[in-house]
Amino acid sequence: MKLTHFNNVPLENVNAEGAENTKIRWLISDKDKAPNFALRMFELEPGGHTPYHTHNWEHESFILQGTGVLVTSEGEKKFQQWDVIYIDPNTYHQFKNTGDTLLRFLCAIPLKTKKTETKNPLGDRQVNNC
Amino acid sequence: MKLTHFNNVPLENVNAEGAENTKIRWLISDKDKAPNFALRMFELEPGGHTPYHTHNWEHESFILQGTGVLVTSEGEKKFQQWDVIYIDPNTYHQFKNTGDTLLRFLCAIPLKTKKTETKNPLGDRQVNNC
Repeated sequence: MKLTHFNNVPLENVNAEGAENTKIRWLISDKDKAPNFALRMFELEPGGHTPYHTHNWEHESFILQGTGVLVTSEGEKKFQQWDVIYIDPNTYHQFKNTGDTLLRFLCAIPLKTKKTETKNPLGDRQVNNC
Repeated sequence: MKLTHFNNVPLENVNAEGAENTKIRWLISDKDKAPNFALRMFELEPGGHTPYHTHNWEHESFILQGTGVLVTSEGEKKFQQWDVIYIDPNTYHQFKNTGDTLLRFLCAIPLKTKKTETKNPLGDRQVNNC
């Protein structure tokens, strides 16, 4: 069992190619013995973005604060605080902070999916991004 | 892919025995073709609570607004906005709104775990609760 404030969880740089001004907190992960999925918080400075990429696992996201756009192969869609975003496996996506304030969102991913099919046009193969 | 505001997702009563003044929104679920886990939002009125119970699957939770206590076999622990809560499988737990305002929190659960071991002292066997 774990009960802690989010800011007690280390804030780590996301160094994946294609990511800019993006940080991550692994709020709940296999380090907590979570058996099936991990809950992460992303923090993007204004102008920051995650890589535009695709992979064989899903994202379940919730916008905590700030505004931005979700980039997909069908174009850009704006999002705002307390929006819910589900991204199917094998779907190109990118989160961009288009506002003037910090963007924070949650992003949960499965832990058991064999992660084999990352396709990041910018060459990254890390899972430590969104 | 799904991008919507949380209040576009239906707010449903939680009728499980032991729950009081508790409602749920299934933000992302198997209805969205999510393959591994579901993301729900709970809304508890002041004084409201989920059942005190245990089951063989985990919870990964994040407090969005309001205050309350998490009841476990080791006693009560207070929580506040933007706290992170991980509850291991087979661990007794209950969420209580002890504040004067609406308590909203996210709670993710696995979809594939065979849900066989619910032990709710109040007799409920539904999964539609937290």
